Amino acid sequence: MLNFESDYLEGAHPTILQRLLETNEEQLSGYGNDPYSSSAKEKIKEACQCPDADIYFVSGGTLTNALIIASLLNKYEGVIAPETGHISTHETGAIEFTGHKILALPETDGKLKPEDVKNYLERFWEDENHEFMVFPGMVYLSQPTEYGTLYSKEDLKQLSAICREYNIPLFMDGARLGYGLASKENDLTLADIADYCDVFYIGGTKVGALLGEAVVFTRKNTPAHFLAHMKQQGALLAKGRLLGIQFDTLFTEKLYFEISRHAIEMADQLKAGFLEKGYKLLLDSPTNQQFIILENQKMAELKRQVAFSFWEAYDEEHTVVRFATSWATRQTEIDALLALI
Amino acid sequence: MLNFESDYLEGAHPTILQRLLETNEEQLSGYGNDPYSSSAKEKIKEACQCPDADIYFVSGGTLTNALIIASLLNKYEGVIAPETGHISTHETGAIEFTGHKILALPETDGKLKPEDVKNYLERFWEDENHEFMVFPGMVYLSQPTEYGTLYSKEDLKQLSAICREYNIPLFMDGARLGYGLASKENDLTLADIADYCDVFYIGGTKVGALLGEAVVFTRKNTPAHFLAHMKQQGALLAKGRLLGIQFDTLFTEKLYFEISRHAIEMADQLKAGFLEKGYKLLLDSPTNQQFIILENQKMAELKRQVAFSFWEAYDEEHTVVRFATSWATRQTEIDALLALI
Amino acid sequence: MLNFESDYLEGAHPTILQRLLETNEEQLSGYGNDPYSSSAKEKIKEACQCPDADIYFVSGGTLTNALIIASLLNKYEGVIAPETGHISTHETGAIEFTGHKILALPETDGKLKPEDVKNYLERFWEDENHEFMVFPGMVYLSQPTEYGTLYSKEDLKQLSAICREYNIPLFMDGARLGYGLASKENDLTLADIADYCDVFYIGGTKVGALLGEAVVFTRKNTPAHFLAHMKQQGALLAKGRLLGIQFDTLFTEKLYFEISRHAIEMADQLKAGFLEKGYKLLLDSPTNQQFIILENQKMAELKRQVAFSFWEAYDEEHTVVRFATSWATRQTEIDALLALI
Amino acid sequence: MLNFESDYLEGAHPTILQRLLETNEEQLSGYGNDPYSSSAKEKIKEACQCPDADIYFVSGGTLTNALIIASLLNKYEGVIAPETGHISTHETGAIEFTGHKILALPETDGKLKPEDVKNYLERFWEDENHEFMVFPGMVYLSQPTEYGTLYSKEDLKQLSAICREYNIPLFMDGARLGYGLASKENDLTLADIADYCDVFYIGGTKVGALLGEAVVFTRKNTPAHFLAHMKQQGALLAKGRLLGIQFDTLFTEKLYFEISRHAIEMADQLKAGFLEKGYKLLLDSPTNQQFIILENQKMAELKRQVAFSFWEAYDEEHTVVRFATSWATRQTEIDALLALI
Repeated sequence: MLNFESDYLEGAHPTILQRLLETNEEQLSGYGNDPYSSSAKEKIKEACQCPDADIYFVSGGTLTNALIIASLLNKYEGVIAPETGHISTHETGAIEFTGHKILALPETDGKLKPEDVKNYLERFWEDENHEFMVFPGMVYLSQPTEYGTLYSKEDLKQLSAICREYNIPLFMDGARLGYGLASKENDLTLADIADYCDVFYIGGTKVGALLGEAVVFTRKNTPAHFLAHMKQQGALLAKGRLLGIQFDTLFTEKLYFEISRHAIEMADQLKAGFLEKGYKLLLDSPTNQQFIILENQKMAELKRQVAFSFWEAYDEEHTVVRFATSWATRQTEIDALLALI
Repeated sequence: MLNFESDYLEGAHPTILQRLLETNEEQLSGYGNDPYSSSAKEKIKEACQCPDADIYFVSGGTLTNALIIASLLNKYEGVIAPETGHISTHETGAIEFTGHKILALPETDGKLKPEDVKNYLERFWEDENHEFMVFPGMVYLSQPTEYGTLYSKEDLKQLSAICREYNIPLFMDGARLGYGLASKENDLTLADIADYCDVFYIGGTKVGALLGEAVVFTRKNTPAHFLAHMKQQGALLAKGRLLGIQFDTLFTEKLYFEISRHAIEMADQLKAGFLEKGYKLLLDSPTNQQFIILENQKMAELKRQVAFSFWEAYDEEHTVVRFATSWATRQTEIDALLALI
Repeated sequence: MLNFESDYLEGAHPTILQRLLETNEEQLSGYGNDPYSSSAKEKIKEACQCPDADIYFVSGGTLTNALIIASLLNKYEGVIAPETGHISTHETGAIEFTGHKILALPETDGKLKPEDVKNYLERFWEDENHEFMVFPGMVYLSQPTEYGTLYSKEDLKQLSAICREYNIPLFMDGARLGYGLASKENDLTLADIADYCDVFYIGGTKVGALLGEAVVFTRKNTPAHFLAHMKQQGALLAKGRLLGIQFDTLFTEKLYFEISRHAIEMADQLKAGFLEKGYKLLLDSPTNQQFIILENQKMAELKRQVAFSFWEAYDEEHTVVRFATSWATRQTEIDALLALI
Repeated sequence: MLNFESDYLEGAHPTILQRLLETNEEQLSGYGNDPYSSSAKEKIKEACQCPDADIYFVSGGTLTNALIIASLLNKYEGVIAPETGHISTHETGAIEFTGHKILALPETDGKLKPEDVKNYLERFWEDENHEFMVFPGMVYLSQPTEYGTLYSKEDLKQLSAICREYNIPLFMDGARLGYGLASKENDLTLADIADYCDVFYIGGTKVGALLGEAVVFTRKNTPAHFLAHMKQQGALLAKGRLLGIQFDTLFTEKLYFEISRHAIEMADQLKAGFLEKGYKLLLDSPTNQQFIILENQKMAELKRQVAFSFWEAYDEEHTVVRFATSWATRQTEIDALLALI
């Protein structure tokens, strides 16, 4: 059975497991106070060309989103996000659980438009009764988006300028950031992202790690006593080494970038293969998630040999499905898939 | 440098890492829907002699406590806990963050007294104005306690009877449960615990795993849609296999019990050694945490060669410090320590 | 200066003040345990033809909404509401502050469409991953809506049937309910509302009282220990008599209905007057709020002599403004306004 | 039947009702933007000799406590309060509902000791692991306390100095502040309180008003966008005039102080009468609440003719009960009571 259901099907990149083995017997301080966590932070700062960055490691995406948003917002503030953003739709209200509203704006291919954000902020502050409304206190976006699409450097520059004009942080959810950075369509570096965003995270769970996200505060803007926030939200692992060693490995000899590039190479072949055979795409994703429109009969047939995700009904006779590649996808799997379609 | 600072100094038991390596390339479903998680659950049910148990794996103790308490309590309810309980003192208000009060009762050597719990519940329900007070909706205890002490079978039986009389769940935090079960003073089996408690967890982080706690609901009393609760609180790992494989390993051939016994053997030697040299204990802990009263000068001296935890000032000239052993403590370390004192 | 800015410009209906005076020296129990609160409850039950109803008095609308929603929802549930609903837009996130998401659906003239609610519920439960989404746990609507429009008996019947099919409560915010009931277009009685809704409230603040909303649970479905919920959310007044006496007065000799009818008569004259002079309406509101499209110059002119509310820009040259009548509006005020336009 | 059960048995001081009647037909802006609210604020500023004060009116004590605490604390902070403080015991967890822990300290006669607060703060900041503990972010006390006792000027000065040293606000719950100020034992003026506290409130509900508490921020330290906080917590009344007019009346010609003095005069007679007849007090309360130790038989006898509150069992044969006087207590009631004992 071929499996393209998600980008977290396998364990971890072998080098990571190797490093966990090698360091296993070392006695290290907990809660991130270990030399591997320190080393990982230094390497990430360098990769971001952001010596001032403050870096923290958290176990998973939903917890990271809830932690960043709840620790940065004032009590009466909410977070602007695209209607299809992960926090808006697929985290069982984790943000609202912390007391904050998601101010959902319309999106195009998963992306917020800078002018929509600007208009929203303008209208809010012009409204005489804005103290009866939730204050927009942050902008959330993900790179790549839920639809695999990318914000360009120009997009991010504009969004960043708007946020700074209104003095609110711009937060990038980078659960799949590696795959965004490795895309041929991408024109953003980690340094650009650190420059334009106030906080973002570099996803490990979906890009080669067993688990873990690296949160980067870029402008000496870490909420005071952030460790207390982490502990309060259950986001501080006793064995912080587990995250430190993984990110240290991922940011050694550009492993994170290399394995991301591999996933993109696999996705590009997959997309080309489908297009060549006359299939249509829901949209032209340049990253590791590909949204293919299948005839329902073909879908049923394919399902017997390949696992993929249902995305949404397209029309009565077609369905959109998602194929995800990852750092672990093999050339033979792509070849086998393309032979089947 | 010898290190007895905590029971989470090393990585994981080598067999766990071995299993992570062996299974690393398998493509598995996420969120706990993998065969290793299923297998681990079956083995834990068997170890608990509780075929009806529902089992979930969570990454760490604070998150597990917040998840269990917030998902089981009604909005106007709080949780009875000892004043020195971990949730009362060392989780930065993680329980209150979910909206619930901790109803702290006095304790003796870290333990709640059944009669204190009974009196509290009686007085609450007799009070005509109890709707102006937080309702006691659950009893929390940890086994072993923060002071390494143990509830006896008789204690637990009584607490359980009280909770059932008042129709509230009894919840046992078992972050160090292995070390409790392996103690020579212990008269409780996992089956007893499953019988007396409504929910408890079996700690992995401090007993051989990289991370992870196994939550056991014992009486078909899992809150409806518990996965939704987990996701909402950021407690659902994408790669659930990471927890499943670890607990599957720990509950294969009684590894969990064996490695716990080793820690207790080491702790017993440590305690005996200190006593033999005339040191005094804060209290007689039968588990892996030992609380020794040191002269301040001796403490300063020892600190140069041994890491341990400050616990509290004893008097002007003495300090209580904690030595923790674990599954990973070596005989040579104990010998070296005892040679130094 | 004429003033049509809102329906809470004056104090209270004189009969209410009279009753407050007459009863002022009586020594009464607090927290709603007074004979006036009891009497008011009986009269409201009778008006609703709902002998099983449970009734509670709360000081204001936002607090009432937050109380009802937070006490009825499970932790992982949210509330379906129209995008323009009061809770969605003008309560500074009071619902999210209690931890719950508002699941905003598109609306027409302020109203939810039954088929949209049905589709949303169907799609939610069909989604295999619905445990990653906020559960729809309640439907919120207001009668009249933010746009002064009304749900018909047929609308409410359908919404009620859908909610019962999915076993979730239907909640009607009746902050201006009197004005809805008194509208010529209305075909719903209080008894119908009690029949179709699981919980609703009868607004006092905007309909003749100094403050206060009467919450009606219609089906023995009051959350357990509701007084505890009220106290916890700061919604329990010490001098409950203040609310009891007011509602007792409003429901004596149909005062509530009579004064509501007066407001509607005034609004109907106002609307007819504007239409006669060729003004356009944003929509045809049958209740006490009228949304008039004014040329910007006319608006500026009028503003010098009349207070009204800005609603929204209509186009470059026109603005939508709101005129509200109330129980206190005088015929002379309407005449004076119509003379000015 | 004589009634000394509480200090909120009657409606409002007649002058207040008179003013509500006189102003009833005036059309006024909502949400506190009316001239009576403004006038009341000016008078309170003057009474506090604090021209910089920011003043807000809220409907009741629990809501006021939750609003002040939740708007001033950081997310990871809790509030230090005496174990018997109202927020600790009798508000159904209203503070925890907003996510914050109450850090309960031992008390004497209801009062926090400055040295206990100092020690707690010192120990917290010295603890190396304080990021695992709830940060003490505020000190709460009430004047008078739950036991009717008073902080002296020296007490408050010391507590204020400690709070300023640690840079956390000192918050005084003044639900019965009038009765404190009027006590013969009191050596604090409103100006002193405004000087030593960062925020406090002047209770209306228990001191002559129908409802309402006047919150005073004394040092330009009002949380940003406090109206948004109020709306979010349901604490902003549409008809703000109702609170404005009442406080304007209470602070005209020192009415608040005069009626408070009357209550104290009545309480002093009551206490003297009991003492004269040989009754014992639980403690020597100098304010309007008197705690008398009654033989159980005497208590049963008295109950047939007098209402009072059960406070606590004293021993097997005696009970502590509370008698409360208020602005409305009549000399004839005191005389009748003393004739009965």
